[in-house]
Amino acid sequence: MALIVQKYGGTSMGSPERIREVARRVAHHQRLGNQVVVVVSAMSGETNRLIALARELNPDPDPRELDVIASTGEQVSIGLLSLALQKLGLKAKSYTGPQVRILTDSAFSKARIVSIDEANIRRDLEAGYIVVVAGFQGEDEHGNITTLGRGGSDTTGVALAAALKAEECQIYTDVDGVYTTDPRVEPKARRLSSVTFEEMLELASLGSKVLQIRSVEFAGKYRVKLRVLSSFTDVESDDMGTLITFEEDDMEQAIISGIAFNRDEAKITVLSVPDRPGIAYAILGPVAAANIEVDMIIQNASTDGLTDFSFTVHRNEFKRTMQLLETSVKSAISAKSIVGDDRIAKVSVVGVGMRSHVGLASKMFSALAAEGVNIQMISTSEIKISVVIDEKYMELAVRVLHRAFELDKAPVHETMKS
Amino acid sequence: MALIVQKYGGTSMGSPERIREVARRVAHHQRLGNQVVVVVSAMSGETNRLIALARELNPDPDPRELDVIASTGEQVSIGLLSLALQKLGLKAKSYTGPQVRILTDSAFSKARIVSIDEANIRRDLEAGYIVVVAGFQGEDEHGNITTLGRGGSDTTGVALAAALKAEECQIYTDVDGVYTTDPRVEPKARRLSSVTFEEMLELASLGSKVLQIRSVEFAGKYRVKLRVLSSFTDVESDDMGTLITFEEDDMEQAIISGIAFNRDEAKITVLSVPDRPGIAYAILGPVAAANIEVDMIIQNASTDGLTDFSFTVHRNEFKRTMQLLETSVKSAISAKSIVGDDRIAKVSVVGVGMRSHVGLASKMFSALAAEGVNIQMISTSEIKISVVIDEKYMELAVRVLHRAFELDKAPVHETMKS
Repeated sequence: MALIVQKYGGTSMGSPERIREVARRVAHHQRLGNQVVVVVSAMSGETNRLIALARELNPDPDPRELDVIASTGEQVSIGLLSLALQKLGLKAKSYTGPQVRILTDSAFSKARIVSIDEANIRRDLEAGYIVVVAGFQGEDEHGNITTLGRGGSDTTGVALAAALKAEECQIYTDVDGVYTTDPRVEPKARRLSSVTFEEMLELASLGSKVLQIRSVEFAGKYRVKLRVLSSFTDVESDDMGTLITFEEDDMEQAIISGIAFNRDEAKITVLSVPDRPGIAYAILGPVAAANIEVDMIIQNASTDGLTDFSFTVHRNEFKRTMQLLETSVKSAISAKSIVGDDRIAKVSVVGVGMRSHVGLASKMFSALAAEGVNIQMISTSEIKISVVIDEKYMELAVRVLHRAFELDKAPVHETMKS
Repeated sequence: MALIVQKYGGTSMGSPERIREVARRVAHHQRLGNQVVVVVSAMSGETNRLIALARELNPDPDPRELDVIASTGEQVSIGLLSLALQKLGLKAKSYTGPQVRILTDSAFSKARIVSIDEANIRRDLEAGYIVVVAGFQGEDEHGNITTLGRGGSDTTGVALAAALKAEECQIYTDVDGVYTTDPRVEPKARRLSSVTFEEMLELASLGSKVLQIRSVEFAGKYRVKLRVLSSFTDVESDDMGTLITFEEDDMEQAIISGIAFNRDEAKITVLSVPDRPGIAYAILGPVAAANIEVDMIIQNASTDGLTDFSFTVHRNEFKRTMQLLETSVKSAISAKSIVGDDRIAKVSVVGVGMRSHVGLASKMFSALAAEGVNIQMISTSEIKISVVIDEKYMELAVRVLHRAFELDKAPVHETMKS
């Protein structure tokens, strides 16, 4: 008998009818012979409604009290799902985060899980219960109610799966898996049957928002098998979604798993700065001090003792960063000028397989060149190659690269250990 | 410095604007030099909304899960009121029932308080906090969330006042105190500045629903001074409402404190039953077994070995009771016939003072006779005289009795100990 943890998000729990549907799905998995722990979010819209109510009374709300209020959304959900399961004739029992004892630190609204006491849940599972746990919440050592921050229900699911040594943690959402790229941009996008944690992290952080990054990191740390599935498919279809794997466990790995993209960034270039030690810090130090997050950073080798220094920030921070550089940095480092562009897009080719393959970058660049897409910046990591291009070419570039790497076709597998 | 417990019901907490008003009232009482513990209900309508949602998923909901869901209403309220108090620049901190540790038995949806750990609240009060506690809820010894049943927030208030040895427990509601009778029936009804627990119990159970009976019993048991006030008066007016007193503490006691009434009952008479031992049980045994609650019971002395036996039940149970008697009782006891009337009203004169006074009953009967009101049944207890009359005379009877006992005038005091 396998123990599985299933997590259902706000859309899956969005109405009484949807909750009944979740109950049927959970029941189906128990009938298949599994012990099932279910983690649920608040009904969609509920958390926002509660926070709006709180802000109406206090625009700058105490995070402790905000957590007391916000955590009620999930508490209602666990009761409702338990009732729906009982209506199907099943034994079900709900737990709030504090009732499980999901112990967290005291960072209200963004708490981190410290430990989980899984004894009661295990006892209930042995007694034939489906255990329904409130996501997103816990309590600190003083008994204060805490929340894990937005998307924290994923983290609750993964943490419970780790504590219970579950077979896998199934994250049900409104998409049915991880795709090679966004199907709205490339209709030929293909669903991946598996993807590594690292690829998932890249794909998630670059725009394909399927799972919360923190929960994926958590799953990686505790070696929890994560599976992304849709709660909108037919219950009986046994659709398997996308499994998030550990690289070393996965013997058949495609070279490139997907194309990620976003247009949330803006690029800034400081022209003709002296190429001397400390110059990167002189430019980015004040930016960091202003709490502006920097993504890509590029500095070319210099020829004449002068170099150009480029980086990207979130588009919302573009003006503030430009202003900051003009007033506090430019003269201090004797830069010639500062130019910027917030009409850019970042497109990335992601794949663990690229570690052992050469020629992927040039394949990417030639595919883009053939369509006349000019590359403004390039940045590479072990498992991705990212380019910055003019925003208007973004969709074109995604489709071109998807075709060039044959992502619409079944993957060419290779054995990682060879 | 006095420690007071204030309880605000759902109407008082009905909207963000009302919650701000409650915060201003609490702040006012703290400024007067008091330590204040506030007990709050769910925003009006919220508990009903949650229970309807639960019943939509399961028409016969598990009480444990229903309590998990229903208790969130008060949890939202404590957070919101704390935020409103903090907005006024005050230190405030919320507690759910389980967080206080209000320990109850495991009778979900109608749990009884077993004990209260008041240590954390006292520490917070000493540190200058206003402590905001969720009414209506607690946890059992296994950590399950429980609720105290409808109106349970009053009980929470009284229990906290007892545990903290508070100066008094102030129950804020949408009426400004206890009246000699319902002002909608007798415009000259006068607010009582004080009333004894026993009178209060009679007045509350007979229709003037100001406080929950269980909370009044609880207050009596633990000698908590209860005060009923309105949350709709001007904050600065320092209106004192009605104090619920202990008889022995109250030296100045009116003879009659009020006229109570209700038209929720129906009367049933079993005619010509043999006047022998066991006959009352033969009639009422089957009624009790069917879970039908009986209020007044009257059996006259017999003259010819046959007697008439009358009692009243809730009007909703009238038909069921009549049917039950016809089928299961009538022939067994050889009764002549069974007659009933659900167009009746019960009117009661209530007052602790009547213990030491004679002639009150005849004053009541003559006042009613003078207006042509026929009395169908009479029942008396130590502190009340109740009559059953035709429903259509109810308002008239209330007004007649109110005038006859001069309840519109300031009370004639007497010293109880004399």
